[in-house]
Amino acid sequence: MSVLVVGSIALDTVKTPVEEHADLLGGSASYAALGASFFSPVKLVGVVGDDFPAGEFEFWNSHQIDHAGVQRVAGKTFRWSGEYAWDLNTRVTRSVALNVFEHFRPDLPPSYRESEFVLLANIAPALQAHVLDQMSRPKFIVADTMDLWIETARADLDALLPRVHLLILNDSEAREMTKETSLIKAGKKIRKSGPEYVAIKKGEHGALLFGPDEFFSCGAYPLEDIHDPTGAGDTFAGGVAGYLAARGAARPTFADLRKAIIYGSILASFNVEAFSLERLRTLTLDEISDRYEMFKLMSQIEVLS
Amino acid sequence: MSVLVVGSIALDTVKTPVEEHADLLGGSASYAALGASFFSPVKLVGVVGDDFPAGEFEFWNSHQIDHAGVQRVAGKTFRWSGEYAWDLNTRVTRSVALNVFEHFRPDLPPSYRESEFVLLANIAPALQAHVLDQMSRPKFIVADTMDLWIETARADLDALLPRVHLLILNDSEAREMTKETSLIKAGKKIRKSGPEYVAIKKGEHGALLFGPDEFFSCGAYPLEDIHDPTGAGDTFAGGVAGYLAARGAARPTFADLRKAIIYGSILASFNVEAFSLERLRTLTLDEISDRYEMFKLMSQIEVLS
Repeated sequence: MSVLVVGSIALDTVKTPVEEHADLLGGSASYAALGASFFSPVKLVGVVGDDFPAGEFEFWNSHQIDHAGVQRVAGKTFRWSGEYAWDLNTRVTRSVALNVFEHFRPDLPPSYRESEFVLLANIAPALQAHVLDQMSRPKFIVADTMDLWIETARADLDALLPRVHLLILNDSEAREMTKETSLIKAGKKIRKSGPEYVAIKKGEHGALLFGPDEFFSCGAYPLEDIHDPTGAGDTFAGGVAGYLAARGAARPTFADLRKAIIYGSILASFNVEAFSLERLRTLTLDEISDRYEMFKLMSQIEVLS
Repeated sequence: MSVLVVGSIALDTVKTPVEEHADLLGGSASYAALGASFFSPVKLVGVVGDDFPAGEFEFWNSHQIDHAGVQRVAGKTFRWSGEYAWDLNTRVTRSVALNVFEHFRPDLPPSYRESEFVLLANIAPALQAHVLDQMSRPKFIVADTMDLWIETARADLDALLPRVHLLILNDSEAREMTKETSLIKAGKKIRKSGPEYVAIKKGEHGALLFGPDEFFSCGAYPLEDIHDPTGAGDTFAGGVAGYLAARGAARPTFADLRKAIIYGSILASFNVEAFSLERLRTLTLDEISDRYEMFKLMSQIEVLS
């Protein structure tokens, strides 16, 4: 089953203490769509300018990513530039040029409107809601968000949450949204505001998943070298949504969601091994499976003989 | 099989944003010994002053904690006072009075010298080494340490590490010791300096365990309310060492160590639910078993049906 993915498409310039690369493919939808595509066909929604590299459309074609929903508009593609500190956790934005993204209004092609699995990757919650308004029978809706919307569009975000089945956010966003320092309290509180499931990402410390009666906690895949953390959260969300959609029409169970969180973590762990989404371009299903087996081994409390 | 535990014994005054309690039992050995005693008999080594409450000796008697190795010296017991910030992670020391602890020299009673399992709870590494020097055939040695010794007694600590089988330390200590920001790199590097196994505690984010060929990652038990984090690390170390000693004379395997880390985490999770070690005083094995089952459930990637 395919998954509809909406979000930003950008050309990023990223500087780490070690390297700098300009005009690489970025944006929440780019990472999320590619992450999801390892498990399910993707219907991508976004906007690019006339400077957007034609090769990326071909790349999407080769990865079962339908780009009929990607508008091509006269002008420049959204550009973002950021710089990481030595710990690769702290990031400052050096510049943002919204360009064609400024007036983006996601309108779905008719072929997209009956999608049953939806990933609202990180964009303004009003735009996320506008996508849902056009859908005839969405069955499972995953949404990502960020601190910016918690701070500047809280009413829109609050209105969206009851429409979402799984909300994904990171630890500091969960704390900011709920004013709770305990992530356990924060996760439970967010569930009460709408989403049936809440996943809290903790970077190198893994993730927590909250459901109606169940709770799941996992570590992150142990990486020694991180080259570019950009897009890790978007890739995680893409892997989660893609894995869930691949399971077919049935509503995911908590057992499905546990595995989805692991696959999201694995895709994110690959993504940070190179700049932009370069690592994902060559990633294989065998590599994903190997890391999944490693994940099971490293998380086993009681070793099965 | 019994476990020898050496460390500090103190009377603590702890202030959190919500409560303050004075002159409660504290010190690394007090927590560690009680943690270990749920699984194995303990031989406790430490020093107290003549103001130390007689009731604590009786309490130890009732918890299979042998205190023949606790010296009673004229003068006051070691006193420590600390205050926690609102996040309950940041702590400032308000006062320290070493008192009888200042000239503490841990001399083992003859009945202690043949112990096979040893927990060197947090004290100066020179004192930890002095304990080992008196032992005839230690088989498995667990050691805890702290930032103070990394900063002020590094040579002593480095000399101790090759004698230790399992070193336990927290994330910031592991980073400080190795100058690595990656905990994965830090854990591997510390192993190369001596200990066969290294456990890195990450507070609310769980723990990592490094062995010769294997790696284990677990979350922390999900707690909503923490009353007093004092002694959580010491209790963790006690639970780990006690569980390992309870398995008998055989050298622990990595599979044993995985479970030991979980039992340590569980004991720490109970300990922080009340001030000092008050929660551990009434804790039962059934409560520990229930939490162990919860831990297995919350960590399962693939739910076994």
